Amino acid sequence: MKKGRLEAFSDGVIAIIITIMVLEMHVPHGDSIKELLPMLPVIISYVLSFVNVGIYWNNHHHMLYAAEKINGAILWGNLHLLFWLSLLPFATAWMGENHFAQWPVILYGFVLIMNGIAYTILCRMLIKEAGEGSSLAIALGKDWKGKSSVIIYSIAILLAFFNPLLAVGLYVVVAVMWFIPDRRIEKKVAGF
Amino acid sequence: MKKGRLEAFSDGVIAIIITIMVLEMHVPHGDSIKELLPMLPVIISYVLSFVNVGIYWNNHHHMLYAAEKINGAILWGNLHLLFWLSLLPFATAWMGENHFAQWPVILYGFVLIMNGIAYTILCRMLIKEAGEGSSLAIALGKDWKGKSSVIIYSIAILLAFFNPLLAVGLYVVVAVMWFIPDRRIEKKVAGF
Amino acid sequence: MKKGRLEAFSDGVIAIIITIMVLEMHVPHGDSIKELLPMLPVIISYVLSFVNVGIYWNNHHHMLYAAEKINGAILWGNLHLLFWLSLLPFATAWMGENHFAQWPVILYGFVLIMNGIAYTILCRMLIKEAGEGSSLAIALGKDWKGKSSVIIYSIAILLAFFNPLLAVGLYVVVAVMWFIPDRRIEKKVAGF
Amino acid sequence: MKKGRLEAFSDGVIAIIITIMVLEMHVPHGDSIKELLPMLPVIISYVLSFVNVGIYWNNHHHMLYAAEKINGAILWGNLHLLFWLSLLPFATAWMGENHFAQWPVILYGFVLIMNGIAYTILCRMLIKEAGEGSSLAIALGKDWKGKSSVIIYSIAILLAFFNPLLAVGLYVVVAVMWFIPDRRIEKKVAGF
Repeated sequence: MKKGRLEAFSDGVIAIIITIMVLEMHVPHGDSIKELLPMLPVIISYVLSFVNVGIYWNNHHHMLYAAEKINGAILWGNLHLLFWLSLLPFATAWMGENHFAQWPVILYGFVLIMNGIAYTILCRMLIKEAGEGSSLAIALGKDWKGKSSVIIYSIAILLAFFNPLLAVGLYVVVAVMWFIPDRRIEKKVAGF
Repeated sequence: MKKGRLEAFSDGVIAIIITIMVLEMHVPHGDSIKELLPMLPVIISYVLSFVNVGIYWNNHHHMLYAAEKINGAILWGNLHLLFWLSLLPFATAWMGENHFAQWPVILYGFVLIMNGIAYTILCRMLIKEAGEGSSLAIALGKDWKGKSSVIIYSIAILLAFFNPLLAVGLYVVVAVMWFIPDRRIEKKVAGF
Repeated sequence: MKKGRLEAFSDGVIAIIITIMVLEMHVPHGDSIKELLPMLPVIISYVLSFVNVGIYWNNHHHMLYAAEKINGAILWGNLHLLFWLSLLPFATAWMGENHFAQWPVILYGFVLIMNGIAYTILCRMLIKEAGEGSSLAIALGKDWKGKSSVIIYSIAILLAFFNPLLAVGLYVVVAVMWFIPDRRIEKKVAGF
Repeated sequence: MKKGRLEAFSDGVIAIIITIMVLEMHVPHGDSIKELLPMLPVIISYVLSFVNVGIYWNNHHHMLYAAEKINGAILWGNLHLLFWLSLLPFATAWMGENHFAQWPVILYGFVLIMNGIAYTILCRMLIKEAGEGSSLAIALGKDWKGKSSVIIYSIAILLAFFNPLLAVGLYVVVAVMWFIPDRRIEKKVAGF
């Protein structure tokens, strides 16, 4: 019951986040195909963020599916994650409009790191509530993927000081890493 | 359970897509009725896209109603469809504001084709999961309507190089083709 | 099942419509309280539209609560209502920004009439599906309130040619008429 | 059943409110980190409003979880609360863009007071419907937190005439007061 409304609210917020990003793709004034070329970085940023938000939605979905109990702290842990997700459209638009310039790329990486941390915190809260031996705890395991994501994002931010495109490349690497389903975990928890 | 949240998330995204298109209808500065006349192409584009998104929502609703099992790949197949749907407000605004000029009309057709392809892919994924002899597979059949839509859209794009309004006319034809309910299929699957 | 998703989608669209209207209330550039005074017509228009959308949501809620069966035509009847509701933010913004000038007030009335008609059509569709002797048919009765609303809106539009504020006054009258609950009907259908 | 749709609609509206606030954070034109510094008041305002809306969502969630019966008046009491919540993005943007100037800070406090009052009214309606001896009535008790919030907001508005930052400080105090869970109440109602 409680979980249902938490899911519904999160779905609503994530659905809005994923969709309002498209509002930042401003319609060009001219009607020539040349108008679309300078939009390429905007479109690439949009695709990258769409995939990232999609990954969060999928994982959120799986995580809450396995969770059984929700408490007041978890509601806030969830809002904390949604807060950092809500900053993604802003960071996406800044990065796209400035054609992957240094500081926008760094801000984008920072928002991704904070999302990763917020996700891990929510994860820990759910495991704590479910108990260490719960199927949720086993499914999430050592969370090497979450930890390595934060490390790769940090490296990306450092690289951005030399070449921002290298950082963007690493953001894509992490997205691909999550996009390819983790078969091992899927097998461990039936129904996951 | 899993299907419920997939539906809820899709409903949220589609509801937002269908509604934010109206945000692209910029309020005219003057207060005369003449201000509304140049908006006519914007309004027509809005109606066309509203009907198209409505068609996708209806079909998505029917398709998932008949589906029984969902897996991780289907979640992404669904996000892929939502991605192309999310580009419709952008294409709609560009086409409307440029009064059905050539390239905006072509882009609109391209987005419609990609939506059609994404829908077909999702369809195939659901049938594969349900099994070839399932009621879902029988209901969707050979999907002649989906295939002919993509063909007509392709012809429309070619025609747009000569006269963009012909292309818009074909977009309307496809919308009408879907709008008129397919009695044959409705009979085949009770409850559809 | 089917009804649930129809309700969820409608809730989503109506929730977005009611909320995006506030996006049309552009934040004034200065920081003085005087900046808010010229916003008064915008705020009044917003309140009027918020109440109108609220009325539609409440009635939609009651109507579908009593309905039992949904078919493909009803899905479109519902989308038709949502289409006209989606034009309300545009009409609201045009009316508010032009301080209740003649044509914006007329357009607003026109959108209200079309909403009233779309609601009546949906109502008839649901009654037809449920059957003439159904509790839904009895609850909705002769729909004198729906019919008189459309008549009052039509009178309001005519009056707007002489004095737009008289029209706005009549829009308020209809909203109050719906806002005050119809005890008679509430008694007829328990649980309504 | 009825409660479910009330919750779903409220979730939708609150999800949109919490998310559209981020649309008011306009993307800076330059790509330097210096561009973000003048955004600090905008970001602080966003965080404050995000937390406030989060608090309302959490409490709304708890309140309706304990409620059993819903009537037509409660639907309007709920819409009344959503109306005042919907003004928060506007007040947030005005306050942030004007760097906590006097009148925007006062308006923000006014909107918070009205939200508090609307919440209390909804609360009373639900208790009246549930009965004075109901678990809902016991859980909400004397609502000292709600009452003291309104008093602190009123003091904040008075202080804003001398120093607006003092008022903002008090807004933060109230948010913290609600953020720290009320253990006493959580114990009283199991499942709350």
